[in-house]
Amino acid sequence: MRLVLAGFGVVGQSFARLLMAQEKELAATYGLVPQVVGIMDSSGWLTDEHGIDLKKALRAKAETGGVASKAGGKEVPRRPTDVIRDLEAEVLIEATPTNFKTGEPGFSHMKAAFESKKHVVTCNKGPLAIAYYALHELARHNGVQLRFSGAVGGGTPVLDFGKTCSMGDKLTGIRGILNGTCNYILTKMEGEGLPFDDALDGAKKAGYAEADPSLDIDGYDSAVKLVITANHLLLSKAGIKDVKVKGIRGMSAKEVQKAKKDGKAVRLIASASRETGLTVAPTLIERDHPLCINGANNAVEFECEYSGPKVIIGKGAGGPETASSLLRDLLEIRGRINGPAEAIASYRMSGVGGG
Amino acid sequence: MRLVLAGFGVVGQSFARLLMAQEKELAATYGLVPQVVGIMDSSGWLTDEHGIDLKKALRAKAETGGVASKAGGKEVPRRPTDVIRDLEAEVLIEATPTNFKTGEPGFSHMKAAFESKKHVVTCNKGPLAIAYYALHELARHNGVQLRFSGAVGGGTPVLDFGKTCSMGDKLTGIRGILNGTCNYILTKMEGEGLPFDDALDGAKKAGYAEADPSLDIDGYDSAVKLVITANHLLLSKAGIKDVKVKGIRGMSAKEVQKAKKDGKAVRLIASASRETGLTVAPTLIERDHPLCINGANNAVEFECEYSGPKVIIGKGAGGPETASSLLRDLLEIRGRINGPAEAIASYRMSGVGGG
Repeated sequence: MRLVLAGFGVVGQSFARLLMAQEKELAATYGLVPQVVGIMDSSGWLTDEHGIDLKKALRAKAETGGVASKAGGKEVPRRPTDVIRDLEAEVLIEATPTNFKTGEPGFSHMKAAFESKKHVVTCNKGPLAIAYYALHELARHNGVQLRFSGAVGGGTPVLDFGKTCSMGDKLTGIRGILNGTCNYILTKMEGEGLPFDDALDGAKKAGYAEADPSLDIDGYDSAVKLVITANHLLLSKAGIKDVKVKGIRGMSAKEVQKAKKDGKAVRLIASASRETGLTVAPTLIERDHPLCINGANNAVEFECEYSGPKVIIGKGAGGPETASSLLRDLLEIRGRINGPAEAIASYRMSGVGGG
Repeated sequence: MRLVLAGFGVVGQSFARLLMAQEKELAATYGLVPQVVGIMDSSGWLTDEHGIDLKKALRAKAETGGVASKAGGKEVPRRPTDVIRDLEAEVLIEATPTNFKTGEPGFSHMKAAFESKKHVVTCNKGPLAIAYYALHELARHNGVQLRFSGAVGGGTPVLDFGKTCSMGDKLTGIRGILNGTCNYILTKMEGEGLPFDDALDGAKKAGYAEADPSLDIDGYDSAVKLVITANHLLLSKAGIKDVKVKGIRGMSAKEVQKAKKDGKAVRLIASASRETGLTVAPTLIERDHPLCINGANNAVEFECEYSGPKVIIGKGAGGPETASSLLRDLLEIRGRINGPAEAIASYRMSGVGGG
């Protein structure tokens, strides 16, 4: 299976490493022999129609900060969308930096892929939140697939799980913790009695928060993920502007400690339901509620009419975690291309983690 | 889609109600128009090749305790396996009472279904724990499917979630709370300081524990579910005898209270890993660990090499819950029969819970 990899940051590199680490299992269990024919980062393109040596590409990236330079492939000065169109490949892995305002360059990359009949696997939230239905329409029109497990929950399959829950049941509401950085900060304030600013500094030192943490602590990252989740699972036809957003910036230490004394906890909860619409806000929850998790994790509760509430908990971000979602999506696409028989076979055979 | 329903107890009746309640959505969203052509319970068979009136069948069951009597269909005195073979249908829903020693009558019912080229959807743990690989071999040999989401976790898709987690990652271990009754008892002992026997009586009154609660409190129900889970997700090739089982019978109230004081909790944990093999035993866990849930719920943690640990929490039993798993399996089978294109289409379209 021939892949084009747009974006070679933390996630893109983790994906390349995962392909190498899982090489034998992918071939034996799923009959998948991936071949990366193009890698793009800010330095330009590295392409090789016979398959890029991923070890070399990773080394070049580490040594020079750019993949296009001296990695044995040939640099391509042309427009990324033209390269994506022209490369002979089945799937585009879109992992460029996300943009919540324009969705670019991810949106144009995906559009170019669809128009050249390539499936798209992405963890890029911006384009999905801004143009969720347009992207699906483009994919369907061109007879290819769009998958984006990694866009919500990192390695935790929030979207796939919600889809599973909604089969044969009625999903009536979704709420949860979609931003690990905020949860890390709130947990620190709670456990160590820190004021907000100190907890935020701790999150930066621990590598959870960006130099500019606005998107996290002002709730927009959660809002974007909520839009994608609600559109995917509740057909909400929503955009970011439809979400009532309140972040945790300047959260009072008193409030957090008071909640703790009352056997409760403050968490940044993103919620989608018919009654309340889409909201993101700091919320009091019972300490022993399954959603009340600590640290840089995500937790999502799905309210099902017949089978009751269900919660999933896991890491919400991280390179290897998100890369595993990209790979899972790739395997789903392969399963569907090869038809149900083989899908089931590989499903049954799968010795992954064989005990 | 023509269905045969073997077993018309709590789960079987809930399944019939769910089919009626979801009728419109199943047709509109999945193009599924189920037709139950046979229902079996201890009173015999009710069959109707034109489709049984489920309302009548449920009324007959409520009024007479048996479905075969005066429900407008014709009674069939013949052997269940012959009826299953001869009925013209695509799928057997096997929901008869489970038997951990012989697996009967469920095993014979499934065998008869496979030999007459019928898919099987079941929540019957016994046959799966005793003959997991034999049943899969029979299904594969006859070119039909065997699905059993409802066998572990009731309405909580433990097995499907584990399979999702293992795609593109390596599942290295599984541990969790697989018996809601025991968790209810332990929670009661913890919260109200009750001795074991009083907590058990409470569980009986609340309808969580059977008159003979041995299978629950001695850990065998957990062990059986662990075997199915480990075989399905870790290819453990295990049987019940491979599980080291210790239940919670006679659990000391002191021990439970001591754990509580130490910020921990005693829970009946079923665990499967390469190192420790398969075990079921009361275990001390941190109170703020995601697995530490209260009440009659299930919680399972999946250890993934690349994406870290993931936890799923939900109701572990109950009629409507388990029925929703049977229906989900039925939709999965339909999706695979109709091929990936339609599978994806219905997947995309699915307005279930549409917000």
